[in-house]
Amino acid sequence: MTPAPFFSSRWVKAGEQVTERPAGGLPAGFRAAGAAAAIKPSGRLDVGLLVCQEPATTSAARFTRSGVLAAPVLVCQERCRLDALRAVAVNSGNANAATGRRGIDEAARMQGAGAMVAGVAEDQVAVASTGIIGVALPGDRVIAGLRSALETLAPDGDTAFAEAIMTTDAYAKRATLEVTLSGGTVVLSAQAKGAGMMSPSFATLLCFVQTDAHFSAQTADLLLGVCVKRSFDRITVDGQLSTNDTVILMASGASGVQVAPESADEVSFGEALDALLRQLALMIVADGEGARRVGRVVAYGGEQGAVEASARAVANSPLVKAALHGGDPNWGRIAQAVGMALPGTAPLALDIAIEGMKVCSGGAAVAHDEPTLAAAVSGEEVEYEISLPGAGAETEVFFSDLSHEYVTINSEYTT
Amino acid sequence: MTPAPFFSSRWVKAGEQVTERPAGGLPAGFRAAGAAAAIKPSGRLDVGLLVCQEPATTSAARFTRSGVLAAPVLVCQERCRLDALRAVAVNSGNANAATGRRGIDEAARMQGAGAMVAGVAEDQVAVASTGIIGVALPGDRVIAGLRSALETLAPDGDTAFAEAIMTTDAYAKRATLEVTLSGGTVVLSAQAKGAGMMSPSFATLLCFVQTDAHFSAQTADLLLGVCVKRSFDRITVDGQLSTNDTVILMASGASGVQVAPESADEVSFGEALDALLRQLALMIVADGEGARRVGRVVAYGGEQGAVEASARAVANSPLVKAALHGGDPNWGRIAQAVGMALPGTAPLALDIAIEGMKVCSGGAAVAHDEPTLAAAVSGEEVEYEISLPGAGAETEVFFSDLSHEYVTINSEYTT
Repeated sequence: MTPAPFFSSRWVKAGEQVTERPAGGLPAGFRAAGAAAAIKPSGRLDVGLLVCQEPATTSAARFTRSGVLAAPVLVCQERCRLDALRAVAVNSGNANAATGRRGIDEAARMQGAGAMVAGVAEDQVAVASTGIIGVALPGDRVIAGLRSALETLAPDGDTAFAEAIMTTDAYAKRATLEVTLSGGTVVLSAQAKGAGMMSPSFATLLCFVQTDAHFSAQTADLLLGVCVKRSFDRITVDGQLSTNDTVILMASGASGVQVAPESADEVSFGEALDALLRQLALMIVADGEGARRVGRVVAYGGEQGAVEASARAVANSPLVKAALHGGDPNWGRIAQAVGMALPGTAPLALDIAIEGMKVCSGGAAVAHDEPTLAAAVSGEEVEYEISLPGAGAETEVFFSDLSHEYVTINSEYTT
Repeated sequence: MTPAPFFSSRWVKAGEQVTERPAGGLPAGFRAAGAAAAIKPSGRLDVGLLVCQEPATTSAARFTRSGVLAAPVLVCQERCRLDALRAVAVNSGNANAATGRRGIDEAARMQGAGAMVAGVAEDQVAVASTGIIGVALPGDRVIAGLRSALETLAPDGDTAFAEAIMTTDAYAKRATLEVTLSGGTVVLSAQAKGAGMMSPSFATLLCFVQTDAHFSAQTADLLLGVCVKRSFDRITVDGQLSTNDTVILMASGASGVQVAPESADEVSFGEALDALLRQLALMIVADGEGARRVGRVVAYGGEQGAVEASARAVANSPLVKAALHGGDPNWGRIAQAVGMALPGTAPLALDIAIEGMKVCSGGAAVAHDEPTLAAAVSGEEVEYEISLPGAGAETEVFFSDLSHEYVTINSEYTT
């Protein structure tokens, strides 16, 4: 059976230079593994290890901006060479957040154990955790898990690694791509997790990206920064910023193919990374706890702040999200959300279109064919366009619907 | 059967000067009625009329701050003597919002018809609407409803009036109180509606308040402003600010009992109004679409902005609300919401207590008795306390839980 193509959304365009490698696998220089260490009660994989054998690996990272930072985030920020990471040690099932001094100590122990098994310096090991907040991390189990992961480290360990970082995710999110550059073909892979506690302004998630292309840490930082802004920064499931968000890009250089600053190859590779992260972001929204539809709100207008606030208000409105869930083209709730985002601007000349069909013009309802509109909002992806007065500013936010399943997941289990 | 007492929440204290009048009824000078005008498909009451016979009635009003204002709100703000209102014409089933020029015309016609049936000047008639957004108001039906309401106008018409303003409300919200002042006893009554599309920064609702006390329009404005800030401004169901929020206080003076500015009676009357609006606000939260529990988050700290942002982030978090629904003492989600509200402040010395039990101190979990805590969060009202660094600032927000029923109500019907 041929697996479904990775690039499945109409909102992501991968260029000609990009080919999927459906079988997966890591770029040259990388090995990964997952282990079951009894941190999750389910007994599933819950410790992941990723190692790069190349001493000159470059890297870049982005973290949550929450005022309540998990211990592993603090350890990464304070005790890592974020531009020269060579290993990642991750656990799921426990976030090691709101765990105080002891939590920091456990994250540092985890980093130390990661360094030992990976055979690299401590400050080249990033740590990440995801799961329940406010419960002490069972550090001994994590360390046992890392030792066990070492035994199965493999170039095709990305599948197990992607599984090991899952929490409420319904499925693993990973891809391996080949990118054709002027000097040859490089491999680009990523593993991500995330389904709930996710908001724009950096969606809640863990995402690890690897390539065997050769580029500087500055290039890594530039590319990751731009692509995160256009992907994980633009999604929301429940508007809730996590304490643990972590994205790390590592480049082994093992292919020998150079990506020079400001070159055509940099653009080409950047486009591939952009498509990869956008599709992963959309997969996270589609896997939003209990989600069955993905919405995209695009806002236009004269002021970036107003456009941004409006798009996020719509994407985070439980009324809009419930309407999306029910396939209900209730655009009045979109008008209401925009009004809330822009207090004091009445009367607001607001246009709204759903799947290209204009339903509101200059703030007032316009006649439209109800059955056609109802059919248009019953698909898996629904697009809403908002036009505010003025021109020149534009933004987009992707969001999930609000379902009974979301309530069940988040009211019946402590997660 | 004795009806349940109106003041049922532990979070509202009515003073000694306040007595409930369980049978209801309006203060001297007021009459009200409700009529069924086929605006709601259900055939229930959907047009309300409230009239005061005293020519020197004083009044005050507050409206939503949304950038998308419904036509009746615009008409009230632009064409009413808000300090001398003598009648209110209301409809449910249609919000007359996002209806453009025609919507304004219909709201003005509604005002004119209200003036005709009430026998007062047009600019002394407030209009209000609630229901679906973006659909033309059937003005002829509203006018027919007002004519029909005229025939049943009565001093005990508050019950029918309260029913006529309901939308997704599970029950009518009204109360009649007697307030003992130095010069005699006055009557104070109110009718409110609201269940969804509700947010702090003025919760989504209609609320009409009447008294036969005698005071100036300035006093009415002062008292209403203070009491709205402590009641409807402090509740949230789904964080969604409406296009139609309207609160109106009218004083007929018919009791002859004076409430002078800066007098002990002003304080006494103000306390009664405060208790009335706070209990109504809590009834609205308790009737939050599908709600079964009410939460109160109290935040303390050194900065009002931080305290306010934290309390609202907790109250609007779907994760916290789902946990409240499930009776799950998942305080990690409270830490997460506060962290989201206060980016860049890590490490944050945050204390959290649930029903008086400390669960987080200085940002780290503290040991507590799990079964006791689980029992404490299974009641109808649950209190969360958040302490941020510093002192002197304090706020509270009341919120509902997030239920399957909320999703059902908002995904299966266009409301």
